[in-house]
Amino acid sequence: MNNKARFISLEGSEGAGKTTALETVKSQLEQWQVPFIVTREPGGEETAERIRDILLHAEHLEPMSELLLMFAARHEHVKKVIEPSLRQGTWVISDRFVDASFAYQGFGRRLDLGLIEQLEKLTVGDCQPDLTLWLDVAPAVGLQRASQRSEKDRIEQEDVDFFQRIQAGYKQRQSRYPDRIKTIDANVSEQAVKEQIIDVLEQHRNRVVS
Amino acid sequence: MNNKARFISLEGSEGAGKTTALETVKSQLEQWQVPFIVTREPGGEETAERIRDILLHAEHLEPMSELLLMFAARHEHVKKVIEPSLRQGTWVISDRFVDASFAYQGFGRRLDLGLIEQLEKLTVGDCQPDLTLWLDVAPAVGLQRASQRSEKDRIEQEDVDFFQRIQAGYKQRQSRYPDRIKTIDANVSEQAVKEQIIDVLEQHRNRVVS
Ligand SMILES: Nc1ncnc2c1ncn2[C@@H]1O[C@H](COP(=O)(O)OP(=O)(O)OP(=O)(O)O)[C@@H](O)[C@H]1O
Ligand SMILES: Nc1ncnc2c1ncn2[C@@H]1O[C@H](COP(=O)(O)OP(=O)(O)OP(=O)(O)O)[C@@H](O)[C@H]1O
Ligand SMILES: [Mg+2]
Ligand SMILES: [Mg+2]
Repeated sequence: MNNKARFISLEGSEGAGKTTALETVKSQLEQWQVPFIVTREPGGEETAERIRDILLHAEHLEPMSELLLMFAARHEHVKKVIEPSLRQGTWVISDRFVDASFAYQGFGRRLDLGLIEQLEKLTVGDCQPDLTLWLDVAPAVGLQRASQRSEKDRIEQEDVDFFQRIQAGYKQRQSRYPDRIKTIDANVSEQAVKEQIIDVLEQHRNRVVS
Repeated sequence: MNNKARFISLEGSEGAGKTTALETVKSQLEQWQVPFIVTREPGGEETAERIRDILLHAEHLEPMSELLLMFAARHEHVKKVIEPSLRQGTWVISDRFVDASFAYQGFGRRLDLGLIEQLEKLTVGDCQPDLTLWLDVAPAVGLQRASQRSEKDRIEQEDVDFFQRIQAGYKQRQSRYPDRIKTIDANVSEQAVKEQIIDVLEQHRNRVVS
């Protein structure tokens, strides 16, 4: 494998298993002995974490404010954490990244996709993931899993229809970027999800080597 | 004077005398017996005040993040405070509004003015001030006045060159919107500033009546 550090993002709607999948990715990178950091969105950096707190816990937010806050947090995250890390050869694994804004703010909140693309260009530039694992779960299954956890945040309180739009959003992103975004069937057991993830990581590694 | 509630903004660089001018505007509106609220930017609303704290006290912010945060705060301010207030017939006086973003993020941070206009359309729409008092002060005079106060925030720590660009920014806005933005010579004594403000308010009132 060449030395270039890779940027891997994990995507999927609520309870899809992103945080669980992160553990699988971490073990694999440890086995490959590549240096890496683990981060998340919204957040991953001091100011961005403060913005995350507003995004998840404000009593109400206008959709347009949610969009601008999300991209402000992302810009700080890219400039202060992701880019510097990749530059010094450290891989980055992020629990969510820009695809989430297309799914949540675009499809979920029905904000203009062209505007989201424009904000992406301004704040992310070419700092795109090399590989995205999309944990594709039926909304009902994901919500059921997530419901077993603590209190719901502002976004988790949306209705099933909202999460069905999120799902459609991720599907559209995957069709548009099939080389980057790999679909993981996340309706199956943790073990079965894990095997798919390792498979995709191995394929990515081989593709990078050859 | 007809019953339509007016939106008045106060603009100017650091130490120009905006907060002092606010008192003059308040007395005048009290004398006219119109109901009004006083607010400020960034801030003026719960989430927007949390964003203000990030804007003024973050150790460092990327210019693009500053811009997006500013407009997210403004959108909440417009939707939750300014528009509802005007709709119910209550005047609004705001210590800064959108012209400040053209001056500070546009001219000060050198961000694209077209982008700022686009964000203005998306977040402010037609909720524009009916009257803006631009307190035009020489940067050195304003900075000298402001320096007599407490510790400087993140933006106040910029150099003189930055505040000269702010000045040029406000000048350009005033040339573009001469009917809305009235220049107040703010280099003179508090009393002389006060007289100019009352003059402009009386003229605005007469224009509304006729
Ligand atoms: N394949 C799976 N089968 C059954 N349960 C699972 C599976 N994957 C994860 N879980 C469980 O579902 C819950 C949600 O998983 P996890 O926290 O990884 O999802 P998430 O995508 O990170 O959720 P969120 O979007 O809220 O961060 C956890 O309790 C986890 O143990
Ligand atoms: N015309 C004036 N002549 C002399 N001093 C003034 C005048 N107007 C205001 N000041 C004083 O200058 C200082 C700054 O004024 P003020 O706080 O009103 O400015 P400001 O524009 O609101 O500043 P900021 O941008 O920091 O909010 C205060 O101490 C105030 O008393
Ligand atoms: Mg998670
Ligand atoms: Mg002031």
